[in-house]
Amino acid sequence: MVRVGIVGASGYTGAELIRLLRRHPEARVCLLAARTHAGKSLPEVFPQFWGLEDERLIAASPEEFVREVDVLFTALPAGEAIPYARAALEAGKKLIDLGADFRFREAGVYERWYGISHGAPELLREAVYGLPELYRDQIKTARLVANPGCYPTAVLLALVPPLKAGQILPEGIVVDAKSGVSGAGRQPKIETLYAEVNENVQAYNVAVHRHTPEMEQILRDKLGKEVRLTFVPHLVPQTRGILATIYAPLAPGVTTEDLLATYREYYREEPFVKVLPAGVYPRTKSVWGSNLVQLGAVADGRTGRAVLLAALDNLVKGAAGQAVQNFNLSYGFPETMGLEDSGIYP
Amino acid sequence: MVRVGIVGASGYTGAELIRLLRRHPEARVCLLAARTHAGKSLPEVFPQFWGLEDERLIAASPEEFVREVDVLFTALPAGEAIPYARAALEAGKKLIDLGADFRFREAGVYERWYGISHGAPELLREAVYGLPELYRDQIKTARLVANPGCYPTAVLLALVPPLKAGQILPEGIVVDAKSGVSGAGRQPKIETLYAEVNENVQAYNVAVHRHTPEMEQILRDKLGKEVRLTFVPHLVPQTRGILATIYAPLAPGVTTEDLLATYREYYREEPFVKVLPAGVYPRTKSVWGSNLVQLGAVADGRTGRAVLLAALDNLVKGAAGQAVQNFNLSYGFPETMGLEDSGIYP
Amino acid sequence: MVRVGIVGASGYTGAELIRLLRRHPEARVCLLAARTHAGKSLPEVFPQFWGLEDERLIAASPEEFVREVDVLFTALPAGEAIPYARAALEAGKKLIDLGADFRFREAGVYERWYGISHGAPELLREAVYGLPELYRDQIKTARLVANPGCYPTAVLLALVPPLKAGQILPEGIVVDAKSGVSGAGRQPKIETLYAEVNENVQAYNVAVHRHTPEMEQILRDKLGKEVRLTFVPHLVPQTRGILATIYAPLAPGVTTEDLLATYREYYREEPFVKVLPAGVYPRTKSVWGSNLVQLGAVADGRTGRAVLLAALDNLVKGAAGQAVQNFNLSYGFPETMGLEDSGIYP
Amino acid sequence: MVRVGIVGASGYTGAELIRLLRRHPEARVCLLAARTHAGKSLPEVFPQFWGLEDERLIAASPEEFVREVDVLFTALPAGEAIPYARAALEAGKKLIDLGADFRFREAGVYERWYGISHGAPELLREAVYGLPELYRDQIKTARLVANPGCYPTAVLLALVPPLKAGQILPEGIVVDAKSGVSGAGRQPKIETLYAEVNENVQAYNVAVHRHTPEMEQILRDKLGKEVRLTFVPHLVPQTRGILATIYAPLAPGVTTEDLLATYREYYREEPFVKVLPAGVYPRTKSVWGSNLVQLGAVADGRTGRAVLLAALDNLVKGAAGQAVQNFNLSYGFPETMGLEDSGIYP
Repeated sequence: MVRVGIVGASGYTGAELIRLLRRHPEARVCLLAARTHAGKSLPEVFPQFWGLEDERLIAASPEEFVREVDVLFTALPAGEAIPYARAALEAGKKLIDLGADFRFREAGVYERWYGISHGAPELLREAVYGLPELYRDQIKTARLVANPGCYPTAVLLALVPPLKAGQILPEGIVVDAKSGVSGAGRQPKIETLYAEVNENVQAYNVAVHRHTPEMEQILRDKLGKEVRLTFVPHLVPQTRGILATIYAPLAPGVTTEDLLATYREYYREEPFVKVLPAGVYPRTKSVWGSNLVQLGAVADGRTGRAVLLAALDNLVKGAAGQAVQNFNLSYGFPETMGLEDSGIYP
Repeated sequence: MVRVGIVGASGYTGAELIRLLRRHPEARVCLLAARTHAGKSLPEVFPQFWGLEDERLIAASPEEFVREVDVLFTALPAGEAIPYARAALEAGKKLIDLGADFRFREAGVYERWYGISHGAPELLREAVYGLPELYRDQIKTARLVANPGCYPTAVLLALVPPLKAGQILPEGIVVDAKSGVSGAGRQPKIETLYAEVNENVQAYNVAVHRHTPEMEQILRDKLGKEVRLTFVPHLVPQTRGILATIYAPLAPGVTTEDLLATYREYYREEPFVKVLPAGVYPRTKSVWGSNLVQLGAVADGRTGRAVLLAALDNLVKGAAGQAVQNFNLSYGFPETMGLEDSGIYP
Repeated sequence: MVRVGIVGASGYTGAELIRLLRRHPEARVCLLAARTHAGKSLPEVFPQFWGLEDERLIAASPEEFVREVDVLFTALPAGEAIPYARAALEAGKKLIDLGADFRFREAGVYERWYGISHGAPELLREAVYGLPELYRDQIKTARLVANPGCYPTAVLLALVPPLKAGQILPEGIVVDAKSGVSGAGRQPKIETLYAEVNENVQAYNVAVHRHTPEMEQILRDKLGKEVRLTFVPHLVPQTRGILATIYAPLAPGVTTEDLLATYREYYREEPFVKVLPAGVYPRTKSVWGSNLVQLGAVADGRTGRAVLLAALDNLVKGAAGQAVQNFNLSYGFPETMGLEDSGIYP
Repeated sequence: MVRVGIVGASGYTGAELIRLLRRHPEARVCLLAARTHAGKSLPEVFPQFWGLEDERLIAASPEEFVREVDVLFTALPAGEAIPYARAALEAGKKLIDLGADFRFREAGVYERWYGISHGAPELLREAVYGLPELYRDQIKTARLVANPGCYPTAVLLALVPPLKAGQILPEGIVVDAKSGVSGAGRQPKIETLYAEVNENVQAYNVAVHRHTPEMEQILRDKLGKEVRLTFVPHLVPQTRGILATIYAPLAPGVTTEDLLATYREYYREEPFVKVLPAGVYPRTKSVWGSNLVQLGAVADGRTGRAVLLAALDNLVKGAAGQAVQNFNLSYGFPETMGLEDSGIYP
């Protein structure tokens, strides 16, 4: 049994980590930390856990943390995971960060898009980008895993195979993403009140969302050249789920079937990636609560454009589930352990 | 491994049975039947199952069915489970029916409320009411289990303990229940279209819902006297979840704490029943996707009335999850096997 | 043209007042005040008003206010309407308060349920309860109108006629009400976030909601005797709408048709009250955005109980629309002026 | 008073026409027709109209219709408006069609995309495309108005000004549109059940939606050259509202402010088009229930792409409201008559 600690347990990502790790046969959740809720019992913070009154959220220093656990999951605002990472690595423990602190190779990019200076640029070399379908081998041996953002997970899984195959061209790619509101977190804001979100769809952070450089960095790494994305996220009235609709110039003669064949080949052995048949499109509801990604594609010969579609649950494959997948890789457990669920429908 | 068949696999209850039984370590789902969708692959009917294109829905006679499986789960319209039950019992197999065909002791009550004659009244003696918290021992040895309706599960778990304890009186009990729309099934109807349900709450089947005699029968059995319920179900704009709010005359001097203490005592060993502390009330979201029931209570001394509250997921504890719980009891598996999940929140 | 001012313009009730009064042919909205948003343009606070950048929210003293307008609408937290009322009456202006400050005859009841002392008990004698269907004549000449709470409007319209007719008995009445979340206001709270409300129904303030004494006071006034209500409000996942389901002991022999006939007779001339036929039940969606109330009833002879149902839009007939109806009465305009809309469906 | 008839009164567009025309000071709704519901009272079909039991839906021949009314509104499946149009024009009456039968200049395009032959190609010359902001003068004198589709209204209002101004280039334009589910109509289908739509966002008719040639035809007409659109509509879990996000190559040097200035200039006198300031984006909720369109724009210099945003209510400005706007133009009434409402929020 691996002893696990979660820092940032009072957010939605934290709750999802608790749900998934509590039922994981090889994990034992030992420490739950959340600054503002320290001292409360778990069900006082999250009502799905009534019956677990004995589990409490605490405030613990990074040092205390690494003493008690083998691996830390951090789900914290930008900048705050750094002391935990430092303590973990010094103590020979592992850390899987679900925030942005270790996703960038260059501190400068992080600083430009996140607006704060990076407290430990030396750790960026150490960190591995935790998207198993693209970096599986590196994750297996990593001490510090930077779990990807929810949007990049969907977009990169859809874009990398046809770009590598030359079926789509890297100029002028547009990413129109739709996300449920849980991605905005549990801090109360007018913008995420039910009465404001219901019957509402809207764009936000148009062309300036922080996941843009994250996606571009990985594309550069995987393709060996610069790819620029016009990225516009939208909020849709639902709790969970991301659908990314990606528009890219189509290489001459490429058909829908060609695109789908590339996906099928690329993800043949992947347990979590489901490639849909022609004419069927991903839906967020189909992957709700699961670690699955659904992919679809259409080649629009009339306009010379590929339409690529990816759906996932932003709190599972887009956050906590992927972190558990990385945990499994890291400890040599079967990759699907604790993540066997299909989507819950309806 | 127990070989399992599901008849009525294309409805929402069927889909939930598939989800739960596929991950159950001791069940192997062998046959899926659904008349109108026979011949289709499973994902063509339910999009959460893409990747399982090889699993197909078939049309099979009861006889074929019982040849191939050890236990049948039937989720069918009224009257249609009877030939399956007969075939199963004749072949020495077990059957867990999620419909209403075997819930009543007397065929006459069934016939009056369901408007059809009962094709096999002799089976009613054989059948055990599948509410484990009330009939656990009988379920263990039953060949034919009648899984309760979604509303009765919530209402009976809330009503029986304080009624038996004499903390509430059996005259003039009112049950106001609120249900998500998945309970109405997957048959397309104007009433359950998104555009009709969103921003809508409404009562239906006021004082004539078919779950009324089912609840009254069990109360009579457990209390040894007649209890009449004014039962009004409502549709609320959500997919899953039932909240039952029950109003009953309070015995003199009974406090909130007394009511909660009775629940805690009665359900002390129950893995799926969570009694909330005073001042905290059940929410459907807290049990979403799980087999849990949350119970709460308030004694309103000012008006001499107890307010009892029960929340569950109508497709899990209210249907498929409870059926799996009965399956576990029936085969001597740990009662929570395959049902360990907490609610998925948010 | 009557010059109108709105104090508390940045809440949901305030926004609805602006919407209704801006299109009212006899009202000119002159002043909008909102403390925390003072200085902002109207569309910066409410995005439905882009195009009206010139209208600004201000902070104004009660004295300034009454100088500029003929009538004030106040939609403020408990206690805060009192200085406006005092200034208005001193200056010979009118005030329609949408809060609770003037709803009670006795300051002691207000103080007990609202937990603050009442700053101007002498005004309580002056105030008229602004439920036109019950107090029309008094409203016509009132200087100070106390607009009812959203729940009391629904409950009183359903309860008063059959109680007065003796068709139901006043002992043991239960009110189970379901409300959309806009009633909880626009202050950000975890409880009203989309991700917490969606797929959730829950009771709150069980048997201790502040609208209880308000309803009981009016029943006492109308019936000449004490009536105690067990009142349990619930939050349902929708923005607008209240459905009240009321359970009362039925007088012997009373039928569904009797109850409906009483409603039809009582509300024969009422433009906003719609009595549904037997077998049809009110829905919140049917009155969405309108000043209408739908009423329905069932006599359950089997259990000796009447089920009374009332649906309204909590922001219109439950708040701003009713305030405009009172405004019309107060100035002798046709009662439906500016309130002609049917429900918006779907 | 203009005598008005509505054919296809039992769909959502029909209901919205009834709502808007009933409160229009110059319209008198005389005839309501709906084949499948003929003989029913209006509230039996739409519950927001209880109180109007005397209004009935009838089945009437085109000839009867044109005898009784001055203008017909037809909201019918493809092909079915043609006999009404013929009868209306022969009798010297007007017709405003909300379907697709008269939107195309060439019958061949209609036949290719709608899959049926056009029964009256000679009427296509007569018909005027009913988008007032682009064809106001022609609408004023038209006898036959082809009300635009909901998506084209949003997309064309956003695309035409910057295309005409040369601020965006016509090659490689992508339209990603999100629509509430009321656009799919009231016919019961599994796809539009609440339990299927809630928590779901999905693309449909990818690159083959019938509104594509409609938009391309108008762009050709307005710009004098061929423009091809990659158009992907999506269903989002809400009842009403369309948000169109449009991506187009940006002409060199064009800024966000340039794009917005073009909108402001182009729509300076338009009562229903609201151009938002830089940094503010349209939301469907802001225009809910109103005839307004909100427009926004961002010039993404980093990728050389303009992002144009348009939001409207698909049943109002996208259908019934725009039809009333055309009606007003046609009879010389003030263009905003009966359409004065702001969005209803929340």
